[in-house]
Parts: sequence; structure tokens; C-alpha cells
Amino acid sequence: MQRTMAGTLPALEPGSPVTIQGWLHRRRTLASVTFLIVRDRTGLAQVVVKDPETVRQTQEYGEETVLQIAATVVANPAAPGGVELVAPVVTALSGPADTPPVELWRPTMTAGLPTLLDHAPVTLRHPRSRAVWQLASASMHGFRSALTALDFTEVATPKLVGTSTESGANVFTVDYFGRDAYLAQSPQLYKQVLVGVFERVFEVGPVFRAEPHDTVRHIAEYVSLDAELGFIRDHRDVLAVAREAVAGMVASIRRLAPEAVELLDVPLPEVPETIPVIHFAQALKLVGAPEDEPDLAPAHERALSAWAEKEHGSQFLAVEGYPMRKRPFYTHPQPGDARWSNSFDVLFRGLELSTGGQRLHRYADYRAALAATGQSEEPYDGYLQAFRHGMPPHGGFAIGLERWVARLVGLDNIREARLFPRDLHRLTP
Amino acid sequence: MQRTMAGTLPALEPGSPVTIQGWLHRRRTLASVTFLIVRDRTGLAQVVVKDPETVRQTQEYGEETVLQIAATVVANPAAPGGVELVAPVVTALSGPADTPPVELWRPTMTAGLPTLLDHAPVTLRHPRSRAVWQLASASMHGFRSALTALDFTEVATPKLVGTSTESGANVFTVDYFGRDAYLAQSPQLYKQVLVGVFERVFEVGPVFRAEPHDTVRHIAEYVSLDAELGFIRDHRDVLAVAREAVAGMVASIRRLAPEAVELLDVPLPEVPETIPVIHFAQALKLVGAPEDEPDLAPAHERALSAWAEKEHGSQFLAVEGYPMRKRPFYTHPQPGDARWSNSFDVLFRGLELSTGGQRLHRYADYRAALAATGQSEEPYDGYLQAFRHGMPPHGGFAIGLERWVARLVGLDNIREARLFPRDLHRLTP
Repeated sequence: MQRTMAGTLPALEPGSPVTIQGWLHRRRTLASVTFLIVRDRTGLAQVVVKDPETVRQTQEYGEETVLQIAATVVANPAAPGGVELVAPVVTALSGPADTPPVELWRPTMTAGLPTLLDHAPVTLRHPRSRAVWQLASASMHGFRSALTALDFTEVATPKLVGTSTESGANVFTVDYFGRDAYLAQSPQLYKQVLVGVFERVFEVGPVFRAEPHDTVRHIAEYVSLDAELGFIRDHRDVLAVAREAVAGMVASIRRLAPEAVELLDVPLPEVPETIPVIHFAQALKLVGAPEDEPDLAPAHERALSAWAEKEHGSQFLAVEGYPMRKRPFYTHPQPGDARWSNSFDVLFRGLELSTGGQRLHRYADYRAALAATGQSEEPYDGYLQAFRHGMPPHGGFAIGLERWVARLVGLDNIREARLFPRDLHRLTP
Repeated sequence: MQRTMAGTLPALEPGSPVTIQGWLHRRRTLASVTFLIVRDRTGLAQVVVKDPETVRQTQEYGEETVLQIAATVVANPAAPGGVELVAPVVTALSGPADTPPVELWRPTMTAGLPTLLDHAPVTLRHPRSRAVWQLASASMHGFRSALTALDFTEVATPKLVGTSTESGANVFTVDYFGRDAYLAQSPQLYKQVLVGVFERVFEVGPVFRAEPHDTVRHIAEYVSLDAELGFIRDHRDVLAVAREAVAGMVASIRRLAPEAVELLDVPLPEVPETIPVIHFAQALKLVGAPEDEPDLAPAHERALSAWAEKEHGSQFLAVEGYPMRKRPFYTHPQPGDARWSNSFDVLFRGLELSTGGQRLHRYADYRAALAATGQSEEPYDGYLQAFRHGMPPHGGFAIGLERWVARLVGLDNIREARLFPRDLHRLTP
């Protein structure tokens, strides 16, 4: 038996015998005919059942039952793709399926998000849910492809760490053979250390935030796309690499997930050759905020994105120079004016997509920065080893995968961009 | 300033002016000349210093100091790559580095493993350590490439899970907003559920084992290369995909990491078109073990590998049909003889490389299997949803990345194949 995929049926000669396999997406029983819509990973196929015995047989199969159907291809301009299958011989590959908790055959599912998440093992099968994740999958591919082409080495840093250094709050504690360990909130310190080994590194992996806020933008576990590189002049070199990574993500989506883009009607952005940059101080002026504001409010980010679109024709805008006092201790100051930093946020359609920048690279600067923030050196022992033994000027950036996808598709809740989201209240399924 | 990489120097015209950047790998001071060996991500460059002022300057730089050197290329058949750099102007990009805890310029590091791991941020810079991980990095690339070409979708399953179902022992407990969560020991249950969504899925990600044994083969966190696919006939279809994945890994190593292969003198295996298969019962006979043995001992695995090499000219051997009583509850029995299972282990050079097989796919079979093993259905609620709503015949496999690399290189301890290993005693750096 050679399996034929639903998506290839329109290209076959009428009269061809085929065997398809998939889920019973929908069954419609009319007086003299039953239509079976079968779903496989490539699309839908319409099967026409007229034989009374087969009609009786298929009445037993609830939607989502897995079927194998041997039949003949015929042309029918009214059917999906212009073809349908007739004279089917139907075999069930699973037992008869229970009725799905939500009707998967409707163009969009109407249940509320909690219901969809409670039944994720089934509701993810909806073509729109599948398509959202296919954008995520293609984005990971594109991120890696772009950085591999730039001679980056993929790394795998530990998710179990001995100290909750990077930010004391929002960290999960693990019982590690009777003592405390912590789940890494980011690969930040390790990816810097690994610049000392490979010069250019990236990682695509889970990060963990014990986020006590129950909002549409926060989840406890997500995929972080991280990169770090050495021998830079400043943060602008980092931004140029971030631009390549995002362009690679968009290119991979175009190439690997065109059906998902079409189904979800996603307006893919053009990534400009150079992402336009505005300094934080200038950005505050532009949005009419007081000049001592330490950060940009959501409304400011939206206004800046609108400005970039109008002024530069770009859906991406980098804001550089964020105040040092709002950035982590490893941030490199702006030469000549240490109020500001050599860091940036990339805004995409009104929201922060990526944070990055140049880091300190001299051992003495780290000692001073830790002292200035009142921190002990001891928990940073492994990290500081790298700087004691020579590190080049370097920097990096991170992109939250689910946030990117949510913004791309225009999802209201980041949970819709993750397969099995975790939050303050949700740990299953 | 345009940076020239060390690896490209041999191709340049003598007399060319260049600027290189990298770590001071070694400094040798002779009576009338100082040699600086500079290391960057592409290799080593020899710099000849004769100017007394520059000689004095470079005496201040300990090995591992990061340098920028503008100089002129000259031919020297005795130098690495047949070229060296003369008349250098040297600038330090880091502060003077402390003396490394281990001499990185020696062909192999002589310190014991605990010392190497304690100083991993620096000892990983040794060319051999870098090369080992480059094999891992290329292997991940190859695994993904092979499966993407076979229409698999990359997924990201949660590492924070609500129940310690798959195996009650060896699981890490997390304080999850005041209640218990667990770190996933594998993506097993989720990847099966996602076959219901995408048919074919893979994941490259961390898994966690609270392994109480302190051995050369066990670490608490490692990278698992996982795949699962639907609409199979039986486990042999799974094995065929595992073969493609391993072949892809070897091909990517050849293409992306040839210098690492050469430096480590790795004998890359030929992956046969079809991995030879022997049934468990037959394997016991072959090694002269009692026919009621429930598993293969390490000596048995070595003997079987030697047999496969001799009989089939293959460094890979699949043993199929392991006794059902030794396999997890979701294992599909061998049709016609339920003592055996439709599962396999792939042995590579005498060690288990991968475990895989066909899974149960009917809801009724899961209920029976859980009842037979005395387990409640409740903790499996999300998992069972998938089967209640129709799942195709399916199966999958997993490969431990670090184990693969260790076996490939012939490392004595799996810790040498991981960047920052975690074990019973080690949680830093």
C-alpha cells in the first residue's frame, strides 16, 4: 500500500486509484449520499460514499476517527482542490473517536481560550492552530539558518543552575538532590562565557520565568532565540546580526510555511536592509515624554512604531541608548556619556520584539559593576572566570519565539502561540 | 578595519597587510625574538615580534589576553599553514589575562576531569574541547535537516509538567507557585500527542534525570534528539527514520565540522542503507545468555556489535522485540506473540545509541495497559485525550546527543561531551 497525501490529489489523473489516511475531519450525511472530509498533514480530501453498506459503516465513526480509504479520483470543480474520491473502501485505523470537545471542522473554533487550552491535545489539530505553530517551527529554522551561515556555533547551556543570579525574583526553585537549584531565566551568562570559546554562539531553548502576573503577555516557560558574538565594535554590530536573524525567520516562513501564511492571512513584514535606529533620548522627545523617563511605556512603543512606519517605511525600529540604571549590570555604557547604554530594543508593530546590546568585557569593569549594584562576586564565580582570562568586546540579543509569532499573526494572547502553555494557574495538559 | 581570520592567512599573497583578532594562545620568548600564537575561531596564527618596544609590551600580556594585531603576511614553510605575520602593531582588547589554570596551548590538557570541569569557562577554549562540541553542534544540525526533509515539524514541548508519570523515580521536583511541578524526563507523552496534530514531529531539547548514580555514563541534564511519526506499519518504519536521522548527523559532521574530525582523529562510521536487525530472542542465543534474560548486559551489547561488524560490516545493529515486561506501558506488543514488543534499541560500537519502537494507539489498549500496570488514569488525562479522539498507528525514537558524541570520539566520560555538565555533585559552573 502506497499512501497518497491529500494535498497531492489535485495533481492526479482522474480515474487514478489511491489510498489516503487521515482523520475524519467532518461527516455530512444527506439523503442519498454521505460526504467524508479526511484531514492529513497536507490538507483535506473529500470522499463521496454512496454504497449503503459503507454509508452504514461510516455512521459509526465519530469525527476524528482515523481512517484509511482506498478509492478512485474523479474531477469535481465544486470539491476542495477540484477533485474528490469515489467508490471508497473504508478501514478504521483507530477505534471510533469520541465527539471532539470543540467542532474542529468549522473555519474557526468558537470556544473560549481556557476550553481550547484544557483540550489542547485535540484543539491543536484545528488547521488554524496547526498553522500558528508551523510559523513558529519555520521561524526557529530560519533563525538557525541565518546564524549558521554567519559562522555561529549552536550551544546547549544548562537549564539547571546553582545560583539565581541574573534576577533574584521570578525564579523557579528545584529540589536538586536535597539542595536548591534554579531554572535558568535565560542563557545570558553562559552564552557570554561561550563567546570566549566559539566567538559566535546561538541557542534555541526553553527559559523559565516564575511570573506572578496573570496577563495575556506572560507565560512561565517559553522558547528563547538567543545569540551572542565577540569582536564587535559596539551594539550596532549586534543589531546588524539581529536583523539577519529576523530576515532569516521571515524567509523561512515564506519557504516552509506558505500554506500557514495563506490560511491565517498573515501580512509578512519586509525586513529593511538596515533597521532604522533612534536614540532613547530622541525617542522620548518624539513621543512627548518627560526627558527623565527611565523606560518607554506601551503607548510610546506604539507611537514610535507608527513613526518608523511613516518616516522609514519600516515595521521594525531599534531604540538604542536605554538609561544604564534600567539595564542589567553587564550592560556596556555609551562611550562619552555613561547615563546611556550601548543597548537596544527592537520594536515590531508597536511591541518590543528583541532586547540586545553590547556587554562589558573587562574583568575590572565587572568587579566595579557588581560592587556598584551591591552584589557579591561569589555567585558569579564561573562567569567571572571567563573575564579574568580574557574576553573580547561582545554583545548579543534575544527574541521570544511565542511573542514574535503572536505579533506576526495578531493573536490577542501569547498562550495561543505555544503548544502547551504554562502560567500561574496552568500546568496541564 | 577589516578583520582577517587566522584560517584564511595561508591563502593570502605574501606582503599583504592584515589585522587579526584573537586570544594569545601561546607566547614564546627567545633571546632575539618573541613568537605570539594567536587563536581565533578558525585556527592559529604565528606572529613574529622583533621590535624591542613591542617585545616589552607583549611581556605584559598573559596567555588568553585578547589581542588585535596589524601586521604583514610572509611565507615561512616552518610556520603553521606556511605563513607567519611580521612587523606587528599589537593592541590589547581585554585587560592582561590571568594565567590559565591549565596550559591551553599544549596538544592535550593534562589535568584531571574535575579540574577541567571546575574551570570549564576557560578549559572549553582548548581546541580539542571546542572540537568535541562542534561535533555535537553539527549533529543537531544534521538531525534536524534529515527530519525536516522528511516533512517533520519541529515542536517545543513543556519541560515543566504537572505529574511525574513516565517514571516516578529520578524526577526533579520544582516549586511551582507554591505547588509541586516536575521537570520532564523526556518529551515522550507530548510528542505522541503531537503526532495527532502534525503526524511527524521532532524536538531537540533538554531532558532532566535526577540520577542518583555517580557514573561516567550518567548526567542530570542532557540534550535529547526526539522524533515521533504516525501512519506507520510497525517499528521497522520507525527504525528506517532513525537510520535517516543518524545518516544526516554523520553527513552534517562531515560537512560542517571537518577540522574537528581531523583534530580529534574521529573515525566516522558508514551508516548502512538499512541497519541490520536481530530479534532479542536470537540475540540472547547468539551471546549464549539464558533465554529468560529480560535485558542485554553491557558485555552482550559489545558482543552483538562485534558480531554485526563481522557479519554485516556495520557499526550499527538494531535489536528488536525486547520483552514487554521491561518496556514502558505505552509499548506496542509484537503481533502474534505478546511476550515480545515492537520496540528496538540501536547499538553503535557496543553501546545503546537509541531506543525506539511502535506505541499503542487505541484508547482501549491504553486503559488496559494502565490497569495492568496498576496505574490510575487520572494523571494521564491530557495524554489520554489524544487517544480518545483518534490516533493513528505511530512510533518514535530518541538519541542522547552527548552519548552519541562520546561514543563517536571515544570519550571515557559523558561529561566531556557536554558544555557544563550537571550531576549528583556538580551544579556549577
